[in-house]
Amino acid sequence: MKGALLYEGKAKQVYEAKDAAGRLILSYKNDATAFNGEKKSVFPGKGRLNNEIAAHIFSMLQDKGVKTHFIERLNEIEQLVWQTEIIPLEVVVRNVAAGSITKRLGIEEKTVFEPPIVELFYKDDALGDPLINDEHALLVASITQAELQEIKTKARAINNHLQHIFQAIHIQLVDFKLEFGRLASGSIVLADEVSPDTCRLWDVATFEKLDKDVFRQGTGDLLAVYEEILNRLEEQK
Amino acid sequence: MKGALLYEGKAKQVYEAKDAAGRLILSYKNDATAFNGEKKSVFPGKGRLNNEIAAHIFSMLQDKGVKTHFIERLNEIEQLVWQTEIIPLEVVVRNVAAGSITKRLGIEEKTVFEPPIVELFYKDDALGDPLINDEHALLVASITQAELQEIKTKARAINNHLQHIFQAIHIQLVDFKLEFGRLASGSIVLADEVSPDTCRLWDVATFEKLDKDVFRQGTGDLLAVYEEILNRLEEQK
Ligand SMILES: Nc1ncnc2c1ncn2[C@@H]1O[C@H](COP(=O)(O)OP(=O)(O)O)[C@@H](O)[C@H]1O
Ligand SMILES: Nc1ncnc2c1ncn2[C@@H]1O[C@H](COP(=O)(O)OP(=O)(O)O)[C@@H](O)[C@H]1O
Ligand SMILES: [Mg+2]
Ligand SMILES: [Mg+2]
Repeated sequence: MKGALLYEGKAKQVYEAKDAAGRLILSYKNDATAFNGEKKSVFPGKGRLNNEIAAHIFSMLQDKGVKTHFIERLNEIEQLVWQTEIIPLEVVVRNVAAGSITKRLGIEEKTVFEPPIVELFYKDDALGDPLINDEHALLVASITQAELQEIKTKARAINNHLQHIFQAIHIQLVDFKLEFGRLASGSIVLADEVSPDTCRLWDVATFEKLDKDVFRQGTGDLLAVYEEILNRLEEQK
Repeated sequence: MKGALLYEGKAKQVYEAKDAAGRLILSYKNDATAFNGEKKSVFPGKGRLNNEIAAHIFSMLQDKGVKTHFIERLNEIEQLVWQTEIIPLEVVVRNVAAGSITKRLGIEEKTVFEPPIVELFYKDDALGDPLINDEHALLVASITQAELQEIKTKARAINNHLQHIFQAIHIQLVDFKLEFGRLASGSIVLADEVSPDTCRLWDVATFEKLDKDVFRQGTGDLLAVYEEILNRLEEQK
């Protein structure tokens, strides 16, 4: 069922789905990268964990009415999705201060943002995914002002849903990164992945980091932590 | 008439104006700094040039109905202004791509922005004056959403006026930085300075740089270039 390899990113391979026009197969890799690819490692089993976690989360979001690229999980490491034209923006939503925003603005870690902050980064590895403002986004991302507003509104709605999903498994959703894509019809849907690679997740009781920060900061066992997330999601069902 | 020194910045000293409540004396220094203070030099006569250039430009803006802090030029290096509470934003307007935006977004120098781009930087030397988005501005600058929109609208109107002022002396206004301040009444006015330190100015015929870039890039005689701007402004009157 797998056709040509179209693209290989840092975390996933993207294949054509043969006999399934307009669909793609995302194959989750075991690689972990951080700091724009400067730090790299391989964790056998990570691909399966992220594939399963992302499939869980996309299903739950779709149940709540969020339009996404997700169709179905195919096997341990692959999922079938709708092909989109990815909008080259990393849309970051922050509920609590952590990571780059604390350094950039001198804000103390754990400061609560009420309302949550939405940030846009220009998805361009060569430029180091720079922070941009709305006017830059219109310039570099080939979207209209109305589409930009739609993307931010969707990101805030997804944040509300994800906060509930994670609250139910005793996890605080600190921040996360989304990518949106345009379907052949022109409509914009949530694409890419939602996983511990792309979210900051803290245990509500212990503040334990349950995400890629354990790899970025070298402070924990990535596989154990991702397994913990998947287990909590599965118990919940 | 000069009271206590309230503050010394990289380009100006700020004094209380004795017997003139709510007013300040800005004393323009001969120092030039670039790259957030990393490159420094002294140019005897620069203070006079910037004081006179800024006085000219503020007068012309006020004639066009722009509300500013400017009251009058007092002597070669000093001007009297209304005291404001400076809003800690550097508001940059770009008509043409040059400087940081070309590197940040991979945009070719001289690309024309139509409409012009407005950028906000958080005025904080310790943080290196980082680029921020609107949501960050509301967080760090103690302003309302309506005030932020007002500041951007003012910046665009000032851009139109400045473009005409410089066009008349055969100069292309590439980009510039503004600071706004809050008067005791609460209303927001243009403050700080408008000078070749804070604008990118290119001769329309030769593309010669007539601004602080000759110092940043070590490619020309700063005093000669600033003198040229002042002469053209004076001839124009
Ligand atoms: N539904 C989709 N349609 C097209 N491309 C997608 C879709 N979902 C994700 N992608 C893209 O797949 C690529 C591979 O993902 P990933 O390995 O995470 O890449 P990256 O190294 O850019 O983070 C990315 O460019 C991502 O934007
Ligand atoms: N009308 C005003 N009221 C109060 N402060 C002002 C006014 N105009 C300018 N300033 C402030 O004067 C200070 C000195 O200016 P400058 O030497 O350019 O400082 P900087 O090193 O921050 O660029 C700056 O903090 C500037 O914001
Ligand atoms: Mg990715
Ligand atoms: Mg200054």
